[in-house]
Amino acid sequence: MPATHDDVALKQLYADFAATGLMPLWATRDDLMPTVPRPGARPHVWRWVEVRALAARAGDLVPVGRGGERRAIAYANPGIEGEPYATPTLWAAVQYLGPQEVAPAHRHSQSAFRFVLEGQGVWTVVDGDPVAMRRGDLLLTAGWRWHEHHNIADSPMLWLDGLDIPLVAALDAGFFEFGPDEITDRSTPQLSRNERLWRHPGLRPIGAPVTRTSPLMAYRWEHTDAALDAQLELDAAGSAGAVEPGHAAVRFTNPATGGDALVTMRMEMHRLEVGAASKVSRSVGSSVWQVFDGDGTFELGRDVLDVEPGDVVAVPSWCDVRVRARSRLDVFVFSDAPVYEMLNLASPEGIRAR
Amino acid sequence: MPATHDDVALKQLYADFAATGLMPLWATRDDLMPTVPRPGARPHVWRWVEVRALAARAGDLVPVGRGGERRAIAYANPGIEGEPYATPTLWAAVQYLGPQEVAPAHRHSQSAFRFVLEGQGVWTVVDGDPVAMRRGDLLLTAGWRWHEHHNIADSPMLWLDGLDIPLVAALDAGFFEFGPDEITDRSTPQLSRNERLWRHPGLRPIGAPVTRTSPLMAYRWEHTDAALDAQLELDAAGSAGAVEPGHAAVRFTNPATGGDALVTMRMEMHRLEVGAASKVSRSVGSSVWQVFDGDGTFELGRDVLDVEPGDVVAVPSWCDVRVRARSRLDVFVFSDAPVYEMLNLASPEGIRAR
Amino acid sequence: MPATHDDVALKQLYADFAATGLMPLWATRDDLMPTVPRPGARPHVWRWVEVRALAARAGDLVPVGRGGERRAIAYANPGIEGEPYATPTLWAAVQYLGPQEVAPAHRHSQSAFRFVLEGQGVWTVVDGDPVAMRRGDLLLTAGWRWHEHHNIADSPMLWLDGLDIPLVAALDAGFFEFGPDEITDRSTPQLSRNERLWRHPGLRPIGAPVTRTSPLMAYRWEHTDAALDAQLELDAAGSAGAVEPGHAAVRFTNPATGGDALVTMRMEMHRLEVGAASKVSRSVGSSVWQVFDGDGTFELGRDVLDVEPGDVVAVPSWCDVRVRARSRLDVFVFSDAPVYEMLNLASPEGIRAR
Amino acid sequence: MPATHDDVALKQLYADFAATGLMPLWATRDDLMPTVPRPGARPHVWRWVEVRALAARAGDLVPVGRGGERRAIAYANPGIEGEPYATPTLWAAVQYLGPQEVAPAHRHSQSAFRFVLEGQGVWTVVDGDPVAMRRGDLLLTAGWRWHEHHNIADSPMLWLDGLDIPLVAALDAGFFEFGPDEITDRSTPQLSRNERLWRHPGLRPIGAPVTRTSPLMAYRWEHTDAALDAQLELDAAGSAGAVEPGHAAVRFTNPATGGDALVTMRMEMHRLEVGAASKVSRSVGSSVWQVFDGDGTFELGRDVLDVEPGDVVAVPSWCDVRVRARSRLDVFVFSDAPVYEMLNLASPEGIRAR
Repeated sequence: MPATHDDVALKQLYADFAATGLMPLWATRDDLMPTVPRPGARPHVWRWVEVRALAARAGDLVPVGRGGERRAIAYANPGIEGEPYATPTLWAAVQYLGPQEVAPAHRHSQSAFRFVLEGQGVWTVVDGDPVAMRRGDLLLTAGWRWHEHHNIADSPMLWLDGLDIPLVAALDAGFFEFGPDEITDRSTPQLSRNERLWRHPGLRPIGAPVTRTSPLMAYRWEHTDAALDAQLELDAAGSAGAVEPGHAAVRFTNPATGGDALVTMRMEMHRLEVGAASKVSRSVGSSVWQVFDGDGTFELGRDVLDVEPGDVVAVPSWCDVRVRARSRLDVFVFSDAPVYEMLNLASPEGIRAR
Repeated sequence: MPATHDDVALKQLYADFAATGLMPLWATRDDLMPTVPRPGARPHVWRWVEVRALAARAGDLVPVGRGGERRAIAYANPGIEGEPYATPTLWAAVQYLGPQEVAPAHRHSQSAFRFVLEGQGVWTVVDGDPVAMRRGDLLLTAGWRWHEHHNIADSPMLWLDGLDIPLVAALDAGFFEFGPDEITDRSTPQLSRNERLWRHPGLRPIGAPVTRTSPLMAYRWEHTDAALDAQLELDAAGSAGAVEPGHAAVRFTNPATGGDALVTMRMEMHRLEVGAASKVSRSVGSSVWQVFDGDGTFELGRDVLDVEPGDVVAVPSWCDVRVRARSRLDVFVFSDAPVYEMLNLASPEGIRAR
Repeated sequence: MPATHDDVALKQLYADFAATGLMPLWATRDDLMPTVPRPGARPHVWRWVEVRALAARAGDLVPVGRGGERRAIAYANPGIEGEPYATPTLWAAVQYLGPQEVAPAHRHSQSAFRFVLEGQGVWTVVDGDPVAMRRGDLLLTAGWRWHEHHNIADSPMLWLDGLDIPLVAALDAGFFEFGPDEITDRSTPQLSRNERLWRHPGLRPIGAPVTRTSPLMAYRWEHTDAALDAQLELDAAGSAGAVEPGHAAVRFTNPATGGDALVTMRMEMHRLEVGAASKVSRSVGSSVWQVFDGDGTFELGRDVLDVEPGDVVAVPSWCDVRVRARSRLDVFVFSDAPVYEMLNLASPEGIRAR
Repeated sequence: MPATHDDVALKQLYADFAATGLMPLWATRDDLMPTVPRPGARPHVWRWVEVRALAARAGDLVPVGRGGERRAIAYANPGIEGEPYATPTLWAAVQYLGPQEVAPAHRHSQSAFRFVLEGQGVWTVVDGDPVAMRRGDLLLTAGWRWHEHHNIADSPMLWLDGLDIPLVAALDAGFFEFGPDEITDRSTPQLSRNERLWRHPGLRPIGAPVTRTSPLMAYRWEHTDAALDAQLELDAAGSAGAVEPGHAAVRFTNPATGGDALVTMRMEMHRLEVGAASKVSRSVGSSVWQVFDGDGTFELGRDVLDVEPGDVVAVPSWCDVRVRARSRLDVFVFSDAPVYEMLNLASPEGIRAR
C-alpha cells in the first residue's frame, strides 16, 4: 500500500515501530493471509531404494544410544528449510534397528506410531507391555507413554516412524523424559496385553479404562489385509463398502471411542485394484504416504510420480492428489486431518457453516 | 395429611377435582415419589428346563405366521400384572424356530437382539443382509430395520429375544410395518456383509456410514469366548484387565463409536471362575440375565437362587445383586443402563453432581 | 393367529405358559407393537377458570404440611386411568401457596420447574439459594436439589409445576428425602446467587462448575418477553430469527452447555402474532401447553379447542398440533423431547438413519 | 552421540543424507524434543503510552485501503524473529480507525475478535449485520465471515485485534477473499441482529442455527462489568463464585453450546480487588493479556513487570504467571487454550491419563 511513501515521517514511523516491537499489518498482509494455502512444503517423493541403503549404512556406522535415542532418519521436505519435517505438522522417519540391538526407554508428549516395512523380531515395550512388531503391522505409542525397543533377530528391522513433532514444536508443547539406560523387559510374547484385552471386534473389556488415545496398540497386518480384501470383494459383488470403485480403505481407530487411534494423527491403509484410480481430492492439511506393496503413480497437482514399494510421498496442504494403481497397490497414509476437524479449519466453507 | 378432614366441603372439593380431571398430590405423594425405588417387578427366575419344554410344545402346536409374526414366548415378571414384561423396560422371550420354518419380514422402532442358546442353521436377514445364527452369538436388529428369519436345519433353534418393548410402549414411541409375506433372501453366507466390513478390530471401513446403533450386527461366540479367556488369563498372571478377581466381562459395543451396540439396551457377557463371586452391586434400572454355561447362584436381596444353563433371571431396579459361580459360569446380561445414564437418572447423588 | 386352535393341547399349553410365568407374543403382538403410537393419553384441555377456583378452595380447606408436602393439584389426563399424569411422561399441576404460607424442604430425583401464572412474593430456596418468583418467570429445581417455598405476600400465588414424575416412575428411578420441618431461609433477595453468577449473556463464571442441568435457575419474564419481541421485530423487518412468519419462540437452556435446562424436559415459550398460526407438526413424545396471555385455538388432530389465559392443554404422542392466535398469544410449553432425542426414538426414519 | 565419529564413511553418510533429503534424528533430538517447552517467544510487555502514540502517528501517515486492508499494528514478540506474532499461535495488534474512516470488507479463515480500548462510533458489519463497538466491548468475527468497519465519529477509535493468524499459518490453513471496495452498510443500529436474537440469558431462539462459533457476536462491557462485580460481591459475602479470593473472571462463550466463543481462541476478563493476587499458574500454550483498567504487576517467571491501562503482555508456553493488583485491576486475556485441550496437549500427565 504505502510503497511510495518515502518521506521522512514514514521512515521514522517504521523505525519506531521496530524499536517498540511492533510490525504493521499492511506491509505483510498478503504473506500472512494468502488467498489459499501457500505451503512452503512441496510435493515430494523419497525413493526406498536410496533410503533403505542409507539406513543400512547408518546401521553399520552409527550406534543407538542415550541422547540420540533412536536410529531414525527423517524425511526432510525440501520446501521446509533446515528442519527434519516431512510436512509442517508431520515427522516421518525410517527407523533401523540392527540384529540384537536395543533402544532404551524414554517418553514424550509427542504421539508416535510405527508402521513396519521389513523384518520381524523387534518388540516395543510400551508402558511395560511388550508388543511384537511384524511387517505390515501398525503399532502405537501415544503421548507420554514409556517405550523401548529390542531386536531379538539376526536381521535388521526397518519401519516408518510417524510423529506429530512439528505440530508439537509449533505449539511449544513438547515434554521429554529419559527412562532407564537398560532395557526393562526382554520378554517376547506373541500377543501384548493390550491386544489380549482389546483386539476382539466390538467387545469392550469392562474393567479397562476408556481413553482418547487407543488402548489397542497393535493393528496386525492380517486384519488390515482381510478388511481390505473384504471391501473389494463386496465392491466386486455390487455391494456397498468400498470408498469408490476398486478402492478400499480402512482407518485405524480407537475401539473404545471409534475416533482416530491417536488424537493428532489419522492413519489409514488404502488398497487399489489393478488399474483403479482414486478421485482427485484436496484437503486443508498435509499427509505422508508410504507404498507398502505394488506399483503406481501419485498425481500431485501437475506432478506425476511413479512409486514402488517403500517409497514415501509428502502431500502439502491444499494440493490435488490422485493415486493410480499399476499393479494392485497398498498404500499406508498418515495425516493431520483430526487437527483440522477439531479446530474447524478443514475447509473455508466448513468454517462458516459451523 | 388431611385424613381427618371429612367435612362436607372437603368431600365436595375432591368430587369437584375428579369432575374436572384433577388429582391432588397430597393424597398420592408417597406412592408417586417413594424414598427409594419400589419396583412392582420382582426378582425372579425362570427355569430353562420348563421353558425349553414349553417352547418345544409351542413349536408343535402353534404355527409362525403373519400377524403373530414370531413364535416368541415372553418372560412375564410376576410383579408386573397382565403385561408380558420381564422388567418395566425390558422384554425378554425365548424364540423357537422349527426345522425349515420361516418368520416373515417386518420392522419396528423397538430395538432387538438375539442371543442364541441352542442350535444353528437359522439366518436372520437384516435390511437385506443375511446373518448366520449360531450358539453363543449375539445378533442385532436395531430399530426400524427390516428383518426376517429362516431355518435351513432339520433341528429347531432357540434363542433369547431382547427388546425395549416396555420402554417404547411407556413412551408411546412404537412404529411397526409388515414386509412381504414370503422370505426375501434364502442365501446362507457364513459371513454377513456387515461383518465383512466391521469385524476387524479397530479398523473402520472409510466408505461406510457411522451410526448410533452398531453397524456390526453379529458378535460371534468365538470372539466373546476368547476375550473372556484372555481377561482371566491376565488376571491369573496378576495383570489388569478383569472386572474383579476371577470375574471377566465384555460389553457389546458399536465399533464406530465405542458406545453401546444398541442405543437403549446394554448387552454384556460375564464369566466367573469356579468359586468366584462378584461384589454386591445395585443399580437404578433393571436387567435380565441368562445363564449360558455353568452353575451357580444369584443372590438378589435376600433371595438366593440356584441357576443352571438357560435359566433366566430378572433383576429389578435398586435390587442388590451378587453372582456366585459353582462351576465356571458364563452369564449373558442385558439392561437398560444406557437409558439411565443418558437421562441422568443412574444414581441420586449422580443427578446432583452433574 | 391361532384363534381357532381350541383343542385340548393348546389350551393346556396356554395354561402351562401362565403357570410358568410366560406369555406368548402372538397373542399380544398387535397391542404391544402398534403400527403407529396409540397413546392412552388423549388431547385434553383444562380450563383455568375452573382450575383456579378449585385451587383457591383447596387453599381454604387443605393445609400444606409434611407428608403431603405441597398443595399441588395435578392435571390428570382422562385417558390415563387412575394416575395423576398429564401425559405418560409428564406431570403437571397447579400449585397454590396462600398468603404467608410455607412448604417445607425436600428433595427428589425427579426434576421440576415452576412457571408462574399469578402473583409474586414467594421465594423458593434451592440448595440454600433463595429465588424470587414472579409472574412469567420460569424457575428450576433439578433432580436431588433441596427446595422449600415461602410466601411473604398477603395474596396467594399460583404456578404451574412441571415434573418428570411419570417417566421416573416408569423407570423405577425415584428417590425422595425429607428436609427440616421448618423453613431454613426466609431471606428475600431480589436476585438469587445463581442468577448473579449466570444471568450474563454468553459469560461463564470461570470459578463455577459446569453441570448437565442448568446452573441458572431463574429465567425472568422480562428477558423472555424481550427475546420474543425481538424475534417478531426482526421477522417484521424481513430478517431471519423467528420460527416461522409471525411465530417467535425461545427454548430455556443451560447457559453452561447450550442444552436443555433440564435433562429430561424441554421448556419453551412461544408467541404468535394476532392471526398467526403455526404449521401443523407432529412429534413422537408428548407435551403440555399453558396459555400465558391471549386467546386462540389449539387444533389437535380433529379437535379444535378454544383457549384462554391459564388453560392447560395436553398433547399426546404423534398427535397433529396447530396453534392459532386470535389475539397475540403467549404459550408456555414443556415436553419430553430430550428423552426421545437421546434415546433415538424421535422418529422412525430417524431411528434408522442414525 | 556420534560427535567423535569423524571418519570418512560417516562424513559421506551425512552428505548422502543431505543429498537424499534426509536428516538424522540423533543429531537434532534434543532440539526437536526438549524436556519441557522451550519457547522462542519471550515474556514481554508493550507499553500503551508508546503504542498509542505510534498508532496515532500511523493514523496521520498511513491510509487504510485495499490490499493492506487494515491499519493494524501487530505486537511482535522479540523472541520470534521476523514475524509479527505476539506468541507462536496468537496475533495481537492495535487497530486505529480515524474519524470517518472506513475499512472495506474481506473475509478469511482466520478467526478474529476486537476488544475495544478507546472510543466509540465504529460499526463493524459482520455478514451483513452491523455491530456497534464501544469501550470494553468484545466483538467477534469468526472464520470466513465477511466484515468491514466504518467510523462515524469525529474521534479515532482504538481496539485490540486478536487472531489465530500464526496458528493458521503454521497449519497452512489460510484462505482470504476480498469483498467490495466500498462499505456495504452504513446503518448504525444500537443493537445488532445477532444480539437481538442471542443476548437473552439462557434463552435460545429456536429458529436460529447452532454453530460451533458463537452466534452472539458482541459481548457488552455493561454485562462483563456486572458479572465481575457480582462475583466479587458474592466472594465478599462468603459465597462461592469467584475464581479465588479477590479474583473474579468470566469466559466469553458461545451461548448455543457453552463452549469457547471462538473455536481456536479463549477470551476472558479478569478482575482483581485492590491488593489481590492470583495463584501462580502455568499452562502449556500461550496467552496475551491487556490491562483494561487499573495498575498492578505481572510476575512472569523471574520477571516482574509493572503494568498500566492498555499495556499488553505476552506469556509464552509453560511460563509461570501471577497477576497482582495495586488498584482494582481489570485485565482482558486471550489464549490458545482450546487448541491444547482439543489436541490433548494441555499437560503431559493429562496426555497419558486420557
